[in-house]
Order: sequence, then structure tokens, then C-alpha cells
Amino acid sequence: MASVDTKVALLGYGTVGAAVDRLLTESADDIERATGHRLRVVKALVRDVGKEREHRPPDGVLTGDFAEIADDRVIAVVAEVMGGLEPAGPYVLELLSRGKNVVTANKQLVARRGDELFAAASAAGVQLRFEASVCAAIPVIKVLRESMVVTNVHGVLGIVNGTTNFVLTEMEGGKTYAEALAEAQARGYAEADPTDDVSGADAAAKMAILATVAFNTRVGLDDVAYDGISAIDPVDVAAARELEMVIRLVGAARLVDGRYDVRVRPAFVDKQHPLAKVDGAFNAVMLQGDAIREITLEGPGAGGTETASAVIADITSVIGTMGTGFLQNDAAWRELDRLPPGDSRSPYYFRLSVEDRPGALARVADELAQREISIARLLQHANGDGASLHVVTHEAATGALEEALAAIERLPQITRSSTPLPVVSDRGVTELGWA
Amino acid sequence: MASVDTKVALLGYGTVGAAVDRLLTESADDIERATGHRLRVVKALVRDVGKEREHRPPDGVLTGDFAEIADDRVIAVVAEVMGGLEPAGPYVLELLSRGKNVVTANKQLVARRGDELFAAASAAGVQLRFEASVCAAIPVIKVLRESMVVTNVHGVLGIVNGTTNFVLTEMEGGKTYAEALAEAQARGYAEADPTDDVSGADAAAKMAILATVAFNTRVGLDDVAYDGISAIDPVDVAAARELEMVIRLVGAARLVDGRYDVRVRPAFVDKQHPLAKVDGAFNAVMLQGDAIREITLEGPGAGGTETASAVIADITSVIGTMGTGFLQNDAAWRELDRLPPGDSRSPYYFRLSVEDRPGALARVADELAQREISIARLLQHANGDGASLHVVTHEAATGALEEALAAIERLPQITRSSTPLPVVSDRGVTELGWA
Repeated sequence: MASVDTKVALLGYGTVGAAVDRLLTESADDIERATGHRLRVVKALVRDVGKEREHRPPDGVLTGDFAEIADDRVIAVVAEVMGGLEPAGPYVLELLSRGKNVVTANKQLVARRGDELFAAASAAGVQLRFEASVCAAIPVIKVLRESMVVTNVHGVLGIVNGTTNFVLTEMEGGKTYAEALAEAQARGYAEADPTDDVSGADAAAKMAILATVAFNTRVGLDDVAYDGISAIDPVDVAAARELEMVIRLVGAARLVDGRYDVRVRPAFVDKQHPLAKVDGAFNAVMLQGDAIREITLEGPGAGGTETASAVIADITSVIGTMGTGFLQNDAAWRELDRLPPGDSRSPYYFRLSVEDRPGALARVADELAQREISIARLLQHANGDGASLHVVTHEAATGALEEALAAIERLPQITRSSTPLPVVSDRGVTELGWA
Repeated sequence: MASVDTKVALLGYGTVGAAVDRLLTESADDIERATGHRLRVVKALVRDVGKEREHRPPDGVLTGDFAEIADDRVIAVVAEVMGGLEPAGPYVLELLSRGKNVVTANKQLVARRGDELFAAASAAGVQLRFEASVCAAIPVIKVLRESMVVTNVHGVLGIVNGTTNFVLTEMEGGKTYAEALAEAQARGYAEADPTDDVSGADAAAKMAILATVAFNTRVGLDDVAYDGISAIDPVDVAAARELEMVIRLVGAARLVDGRYDVRVRPAFVDKQHPLAKVDGAFNAVMLQGDAIREITLEGPGAGGTETASAVIADITSVIGTMGTGFLQNDAAWRELDRLPPGDSRSPYYFRLSVEDRPGALARVADELAQREISIARLLQHANGDGASLHVVTHEAATGALEEALAAIERLPQITRSSTPLPVVSDRGVTELGWA
């Protein structure tokens, strides 16, 4: 097959952009063999063309002028690796509208403005690919969109943030939250400002994207209920250990009677569950569907080269499918409703401090039973002049559980109640576990 | 995008073929949205058109005449789901030569005759896809070929046979090999004649295919060293437990100084290693490469619907890339040599029965040291009037280890020596573990 010379442009030339350029050059032969196209980066948009750079492209490649890319009719594919919403959003939108295929690594952009972007791509008959926006080189978007066309995926369960997974793993070894976070920063797993990671916002953006692709309905960042790990303390970690569980920040997206439920929360995960075994800063995503039961993908969820590799996989996939109509329709072709948060069901863990008086446990059990919540496991410890009560419930509606806990806190014998955390305990083939 | 009516044919209409037809019909809308094509099975080749069938396609679809498919110019894609080498091989070859894209679920065919098939596809400018031939719905072939174009994959480590994984898992619970196999048969995880699975031949065919795709060189079934699990007995299982390991049938493909080394053997796997945690009849494949470190895919490695789902993913991928040149070159574009089997390196486990006399251990250690093999772990148990010695070595050349064991067996103090089994103990990010 005769080779075609194909021109690529980059928006951004930082760590990821430079790695994309380098890998495209180094692997030009491999790509040509796979696609029949010889790829070359001809333009890269940067803020400061004159800045010192470790990897410097040939003269004329760096430009400060977006129009040099937007107006160039021979550029077929543009990779957006600049990050942020502005000006990345308007740039990508304009490129798509002008008939250019776009590949992006920008999770916030896809999670917040996916709507407009997909509509623009669809209208122009071009592709928007975004593998690198979720879990770096783990090819979960490609697998969802291309391998699971007939699978009716109804559940996605994952550890999609490596920073928090590392911090929680370190806390099992006895560190406090602050010590574990400092260790993550020292190793380069956490940013100087770790807010996005520890608040759950980063994981929530990824789960919004995964849910959109898996359920074919638009799930934005605002449609995800999320919670971070900064309130987890060593008492929780010890309680989890006693129950043969570990605490992990778990993302869960489910279809429930035609409505979607997408959450990111610290959860008690059974030590035998695959998500309990995800190493340090790695990520894992479990996809559950009718025809495939359950497929899990695991790997490094971050890293410059890993992200660049995903960007290039998207570029070659765009080139391999251009003009065929493949994946050119908006993946979110239906509008599903969000499940009311209180209706979301899960087994839960919570902890109470109970005065050592007869009847306290009976009152607690009664408040739960009134709301159809049954107790799966119970641990009681002497604790000063009272007792500490660890409760694991069977699956319960979140709203009912919150009601029961509010009632329990009003009981005179009960002096404190922890935030309830969902429990992930099943292997998950038939159900999501968290839920 | 206007929809195109696209005709598909099947070779075979058994469990998988009928499931492909059913899923294509049920998911016609989903496929049309993803590809712009409306797919329909128009012909299915069967031996006996009149046979009673659970799922019966419309009149005129079943045919006993291959020419009705080969000669029909409007059929763009044919899925081979009949199995076996004859007549599937000649049929697929003819279809490819006549310009039809072919999707196959036939592991033996791809492992044994991949050479001719890929050459024919390449010459005709059509695609041959074979996702379903390896680990059913786990999309490992697609990920290797499409997501890892620039990754230089140098290692593939996997549990690629669910039957043996189930049998070995059951043996940990105390069953003998025969009991565990009977249980697998009762549950439908093993065939009435389980030879292909328990001998390692099935896993070897899958590893040959994975190595071919991962290393871009032709690795046939004859190029894979394999060994089965039927000789594993409860003593081995107990020894593994004592070393905090489990026994698993592990497939390993590696590039070593530009030569390939592909093996399937029962191995001692550290309990902390991801492969030790693969559930019962599930499969898992770890892909190791420069740009991605390590990506693991796990899921059900068998099943009619799972296999059909992979066949359909291939069909839609063919349709999504037709005419673009994507994946139309033979993936095996280079000819690498096989690593001489004796040069393959791995840590090993073996067991000796030693007379209880001074000096026996010294002689064993000396024979190993002479061949540069050092001992990593050693367990000794009283055993009647002698001792049983469990030895785990550091990484050693297989040939040197075999030489050392032959010398050890000639020692007067040594009365028996088990077959050495490789040890998989590393997380594997930097090296394969098995070697």
C-alpha cells in the first residue's frame, strides 16, 4: 500500500506534547506499517515560541498563532495537549467546526464541555477522540467504544485516581493522611496543590466521561456525586482492617432502571475484591455488560509518556477510520435521567459511639429496621466508659440510611456517628458491589 | 450520516455463529450508530441445512454451498466460526484471496496457518481480524494492534486458559487433580476430553498468536515450549502454599536481545502477584512495553456470547476501517529468531529428597554454584529417615539449571528430584518475573 504523508498539529508543547512529537518521530515506521500514513508534526501552538525547551522541534514548527493551524487545510488531525478550559475549549471547537479531527488529553474539557464538542464533531463529520483524558495509556475509551458496541454496558467500577490510591495504600502502613500525602508529593505522584486529586474532582471528571461513553448519554461533571479522602483518618483505616477490608476512592457508574447513577466516594473494599489489589499509583477500571460479564483494565493512570502514547493511539485510530463514518456520530445519542441521589443503593459502613447501657444496640437496630435496612456485620469494642460500634449493612437506599442515621444520632445513648461509607464486597460479576 | 446496508456471512452456525446472528440483529441500531452501517447476516454455511436448531435464521440464510458465499460480491465481511483446520483453512484463504475481509474465532487456524492467511490478506488488501481467537471478549488483540502502535511491547505474561486456572484453584482447596478436573467438567469449564486444555496446547496456541502480534514476527505453535498441569500433585500445591505462592499455568512471551522466547508452563506464582489473583475460570493478560509500563486486561476467557461479542467487535472494526489501509499490512513484518530454549532465564523452584547425612546440602549448593545458580529460598523438612528440600533459585538459565539438576541426581545422597517449575514473583513492571 502506497504511503501517504500526513500532517499533524499540536496545541501545546509541554511534557505531553514534546513526548507526542518524539514518539511520532521515533515510531514513524511502525505507524506507517499500521496505517499506511507517514505522520509528521508540522505545527505546535505555544504561548512563548522563544522559550528554552528540552526537546526542540525543527524551525518553523512552533508557532504562537492559532490561525496557522486552523487555516492550514493539509492538517488533518490536531492533538490538544495544552490543558485547561480556556483557550483550549474555543480552539478545539473551532478546529472541529472547520472539519479537522481532534484528539484531546483534556479531561476537564471533555467532562465539562463534551456536549458542544461532540455536537460540533458530529455536525462536521469528523472525529473527537479522548483516550488520554481518562487513565492515560489504559485504553478504556477505545475498548468501550469499539469492543463493546453490542454489550449494553450497565456498570463501570474503578480506581481512576492514582494519587489517592497511593495515599490510602500508604495509610494502611500506619501513616496519617498528612504523612501519606507528603510521601506522594515527594515521589511526584501528587501535585504541590493536590486539591483536584484528594477532593475527588479529578476522579469525578473521569467517571463523567466513562459514564457518558458507557451509557451513551451525556453525563457532565455536575451530574457526579463526589467526595474526597481528606477526612479519612487512621481510625477508619484500622476499622477497615478489622473487617478485612481496605479503604479506596472508588468511582462507580451504574444504570438503574434506565437512569444513571455516578459517584466517587471513599469506600470500604473487601480485601479479596480486585479493586483492593490495585497497586499504589495504578488505576483499574471494571466494565460490566450483558455479553461480556466483566472486563477489567489496569495500568498506570498517569505519566507523560503514557499519556503521549494514548494520544498517538488516538491519532492513528482517527487516521485508520477517516472517511468511513466510524465513531462519527455523537456517542451520547440518548437522554437518560439521573437517579435521585437518595435512591442509590449500596451496602454501607458506619461507626457509632454508644454509651454502655442496656438497650442501645436494640434502639440502633430498630431505627435501621424501620427503614428496611438490615445489618450484615457488627463489631463492638469497649471504648472508655462506652463502646464503639462498627456496622456494615446489607444493601440499602442511601436516602433511607441517612434518615436512619439522623434518627440514631437523636437517641440519647449515641454520642457520635461517622459519615457512612459505601462497601464494595462482591466480585461484581452479577452486580456492581457498590450498590 | 446516511446508513449503508452491509451484508455479512458466517462460516458455521453453532453456538457462536447463532449468537453472532442474534446479537447482530438485537444490536443493529447500536452498530448503525457507531459505524453508519446496518449489518445483516445473509448467508451462513452449515453442514446440514435441515438440522434442528434452537435459533433458526430466516429461510435462505443457511446454505451447504460455500460458493454461495465466496461468489457473492456484495458480501463484504465473513466471520469464520466453524472451528477446526479443515475445511476452515482453505475457505478462509479463498475468501481473503477473493477480496473479502475475514474475522475468525479460530485459534488453531491462526496459530498454525497465520502465515499464509496474513500473506493472502495483505496481497488482496483486505483485513483478517481474530480477536475472538484469544481469550474471547478480552480485547487484547485490538489493544495490542491499535493502542500500542508506538509502545515496543517486549513482554506478554498471562493466564490464558480458564480450565486449568479453575483446576489449579480448586486444588488449593484440597482437591486432587482428578477431583478438580471432574469439578471443572461438571461446571462446564472443561470438555469431556480435556486434553487440549490440560496439556497446555490451548494456551500455547494463544501465546503464539499474542507473541506474533506483540513482537511483529511470526511465532507458530511449534515455536512455543509448553507443558501441562496433569503432573501437578497435592505435594506441589502444599509446597507452593508454604512458600506463599500458588501454582498457575502461566504463558510468557518475551523479547530477549532481539530474539523471542514463548513458553507455557505451570509456575509457582507469588500470592501478591496479579496473576495469582485471577479468579477461577477468568483469564488475564499483562502487556509490558516501553511507553506504557504495564497494562493488564482481565475477564472471562471463554463463553459463546463472549466469543460472539468479540467477533462482532471485529466485524464493526473492519467496517470502520475499510479502505483506509489500516491494519492491512501483515503485522508480522520482521523475522526474529527464537531464543534457544536453554538460554531462557527464570527463577526456578524444585524439590529434592535428601538422605539425612552431613554434607548433602553442601553438595547440592555446590553443583548449583558451579553453574552460577544462586539459591533465593530454602525450606527443609524431615521426611521419614531423610529430608525433603524445597529450593527456590534466583534467575538462572534453564539449560544450566537442567545440567545442575542432572548432576545433583547423580549424587549418592539424593534420591529424587521434581521437575523444576519457573517462579513468577515480581510485580513485573521492570521485568517479566518469569525470567
